Amino acid sequence: MPLKKNPVTGMKDILPREMEIRNYVIRQIQETYGTFGYTPIETPCVEHIENLCSKQGGDNEKLIFKIMKRGEKLKLSEASSEADLTDSGLRYDLTVPLARYYSNNANDLPSPFKALQMGSVWRADRPQRGRFRQFMQCDIDILGEPGNLAEIELIQAITTLLGKLGFHDFTIRINDRRILKAMAAHCGFPEESFETVFIILDKMDKIGMDGVADELKESGFSEDSVQEYLGLFRAVSDDTDGIRRLCEILGSDLDPKAAQWLIDIMEASDVLKSCAFRTAFDPTLVRGMSYYTGTIFEVSMDEFGGSVGGGGRYDHMIGRFTGTETPACGFSIGFERIVMLLLENGFTIPEQKEKTAFLLEKGMAAADVRSAMEEAASMRSGGKQVLVVNAKKNKKFQKEQLTADGYTDIREFFK
Amino acid sequence: MPLKKNPVTGMKDILPREMEIRNYVIRQIQETYGTFGYTPIETPCVEHIENLCSKQGGDNEKLIFKIMKRGEKLKLSEASSEADLTDSGLRYDLTVPLARYYSNNANDLPSPFKALQMGSVWRADRPQRGRFRQFMQCDIDILGEPGNLAEIELIQAITTLLGKLGFHDFTIRINDRRILKAMAAHCGFPEESFETVFIILDKMDKIGMDGVADELKESGFSEDSVQEYLGLFRAVSDDTDGIRRLCEILGSDLDPKAAQWLIDIMEASDVLKSCAFRTAFDPTLVRGMSYYTGTIFEVSMDEFGGSVGGGGRYDHMIGRFTGTETPACGFSIGFERIVMLLLENGFTIPEQKEKTAFLLEKGMAAADVRSAMEEAASMRSGGKQVLVVNAKKNKKFQKEQLTADGYTDIREFFK
Repeated sequence: MPLKKNPVTGMKDILPREMEIRNYVIRQIQETYGTFGYTPIETPCVEHIENLCSKQGGDNEKLIFKIMKRGEKLKLSEASSEADLTDSGLRYDLTVPLARYYSNNANDLPSPFKALQMGSVWRADRPQRGRFRQFMQCDIDILGEPGNLAEIELIQAITTLLGKLGFHDFTIRINDRRILKAMAAHCGFPEESFETVFIILDKMDKIGMDGVADELKESGFSEDSVQEYLGLFRAVSDDTDGIRRLCEILGSDLDPKAAQWLIDIMEASDVLKSCAFRTAFDPTLVRGMSYYTGTIFEVSMDEFGGSVGGGGRYDHMIGRFTGTETPACGFSIGFERIVMLLLENGFTIPEQKEKTAFLLEKGMAAADVRSAMEEAASMRSGGKQVLVVNAKKNKKFQKEQLTADGYTDIREFFK
Repeated sequence: MPLKKNPVTGMKDILPREMEIRNYVIRQIQETYGTFGYTPIETPCVEHIENLCSKQGGDNEKLIFKIMKRGEKLKLSEASSEADLTDSGLRYDLTVPLARYYSNNANDLPSPFKALQMGSVWRADRPQRGRFRQFMQCDIDILGEPGNLAEIELIQAITTLLGKLGFHDFTIRINDRRILKAMAAHCGFPEESFETVFIILDKMDKIGMDGVADELKESGFSEDSVQEYLGLFRAVSDDTDGIRRLCEILGSDLDPKAAQWLIDIMEASDVLKSCAFRTAFDPTLVRGMSYYTGTIFEVSMDEFGGSVGGGGRYDHMIGRFTGTETPACGFSIGFERIVMLLLENGFTIPEQKEKTAFLLEKGMAAADVRSAMEEAASMRSGGKQVLVVNAKKNKKFQKEQLTADGYTDIREFFK
C-alpha cells in the first residue's frame, strides 16, 4: 500500500527558504528578549486534558487535538463518551502550560519570573489561507509583578523586537478589562451579561459599530443601554486624553487608578520608543480569551490588516493551580504572520555566509576524495559553508542549480 | 477544582539551567551542520496514522500516542477497535516524516538533498531515569546520494559536532546489513529467519556472547550454525583488517564490494578526524529498526556507557512513498543524552554576557521609572543583558538571589 505523501490536513512541511527566515526570526527573538532578561523555558506539547478543558481557553477548548488513552486504560467497550477515551491533548496555547509550569517549579525560579517560551501549539480549526492547525507561538510573560512595570516592559520588548525585524508604523492598541466593565456597568448592562456584551463588541472589526448595535439589541439588551454604550465609544479619542475624558464621563463607575494605570503605560511606551509606532487607547478592544483580568493589548499592522500579536494581564490563572494568586502578564507575537510578511516582502537575511561547493568527479580514488574533504574541513573550521557533492552527468545543470541555491564559489575536483 | 501541577506522565518541564544548555547545543548543531551545507527543514509533529503504522518503525509502532478523530468523524457507537477512532498520531521519529517530506517536495529540493531536522518525538515507553516520553531528536540525512560519500560526510559532521561540544575518545561503531546477512547465510541460518537471528544478536551488549548462543539454540537453530556464527565474531578484529579477514572467510557469501565500501568509510573517517575518536568495525552491530538496507553506525561513549547516536542507510523507505527508489542515509544524535552528560559534568557555556540588574525603589515617579528604562534600553542596544525589576522589601535577599542568577552588576534607582 502506498503511503500518504501530503502532511495531515491543515499542517505543513516547511521548505528551506521559509525555514531560513523562521530560524532568523527565532534567533532575533532569543537575542532581543534575552537582553531584557527573559529566561527560555520549555513545557511538554502534551498537556493533561483536565488542564486544557478548565474553561481558561474559551473557544480554543473546542479545537483540542485529543490523545487516546493507551494500553489497558483504553476501555473501548465501556466508553460512553469521548471524555472516557482521552487523558491528554495537544496544547492550544502556551499560557495554560506556563501557569502549570510556574506552579510546579516556582521554588526553583526567580521572582518576578520573566519567561520566554517558544513552541508549537495545535488547534483543529477549519484550515484556511495562512492559518494552520500546527503553528508556532512565542510568548513572553512576567509572573509575580503586580505593577504596570510588567506591561511597560512587555511593550518595550515586543516593539524593540519588531523594530529589529524591520517593522514600523504599527499600532499598539491597549485597553483594560476594568475599563470594559466600567463602560458596560455605566450603560446599565447587567453584570452577569458582561461576557455576552464583550463577545459582541469583539466583532467590531468585522461588523462595524451598527452591526454591534444590532446584535446587542437582538440579544435583548435595552435600546437605551445600547445607544449610551455606542455614544461612549464615539466620545473618546484614542490617546491618553481619551482615557481622561472617559474617566470624567464614567465618574464613580471607573476606579481612577485603573485609568491612571493605563495612562502611565501609554506615556512610558511613547518615551521608550526604539522604532516608529503608535500607542492607541482602544475601548473596543476585548480579546477573546476569558482569562484576562486587567490590561489587554494587541499589535496591529497595516501591512497585514490585522493583529500580529497580543496579550494582557491574567492575575487569576496561576491561583487556579496553586490556590495562591500570582500576578501575571504576557505578550504573544504572531510568529507565523510575521514570517509570512517577511516571506511575502522578499526579506533577505543580513550577513549571509559565502557558500562554496566542491564537485567531485565520478570515479575519483578514495585518497583523492579524502583530500578534497580535508580541504573542505579546513575551510569549515574557518566558519565557511562548504558543500561536498559528487558531480552528475549533466554538470552544467548541476552548477546552475547550485548557483540558484546561493553557491557562488563552485570548485571541481578531478582524480 | 484544582488543576494538575505536574507535567503529564513521562514528560518534563525544562528549567532555565537545562534550557540554556539545550539552546547552546542547538546553536552548535545549526552552526556546525550548517557549514556542511545541511539545510534545516521542519515537518509537522502530527503524522498520518497510516504512515506511522507502516511497519517502518519496528517496536516504536507499539508506542504511538494516537490522536482521536474529531467532530462527526468520531463515531464512537460504531467503533469496534482503537483503529476506528484515530486518524493520526505523534511522530515517534524524524525519519518517517522526512521520507514523506521528501516525496512530497522533491521537485523543490536540491539533489542530493542534505537535510537537518530538529524536533520533538514521542514514544509511550515505560518512563525511566533519563528517558522521557517526549524527547528531542536531531537528524542529518543525505537523500539521493548512492555512494559512500554520504556515510563519510555524515560521520565527519557528527564527529566534528561532538568535538566542538567537548567530547572525545568516543567510538564510531560501524557495520553493514549486507555483512550481517552474509555472515548469517554463511553459517547456514535460513534467510527467512535472518530477522530473528539479528534480534537475538542485538542483545549481545546485554546478555553477552554465551547468552546469544543460548537464545539462538532455544529458538531452534542448529548447534553447528550457532557455533560457526560465534566463531566468526571471535575471528575478526575491529579494524579494517577484520573486514578483510571476514571477506576471506566468507568467500562468495559476501560481495567484496560491500567489504571495500566499509573499508573506504573507515579509512576516510580516520583521516578526517577533527577530534580524538576511534572508528571500529563491529559485526555484532544490528540496530533495531528494520528499515536499514546497508551501512549502520552508532556512537558509543564510555562516559555514558551506551549509544549517544546512530544511523544508517535506508535505500527503500522513500520508494514506499513515491514508488521510485531514492538512496538515503542518515544519522541521529542522542540530543537528550548529550544534554544530560553536559549538565552532569557541570558544563559552562563559553562567552557568557555580563548581566546587569536595575532595582527600582517602590513608589518612584513614573518619569523616573521611564528614565531608568531608557538607560536600560541604551545598554541593551549595545548587546548587554539588563533586567529591570521593582525592589522588594527584603532587598538584601533579592540581591543575593540576583547574584546567584548571574547578575554581577546590580544598580539601585531611587526617586
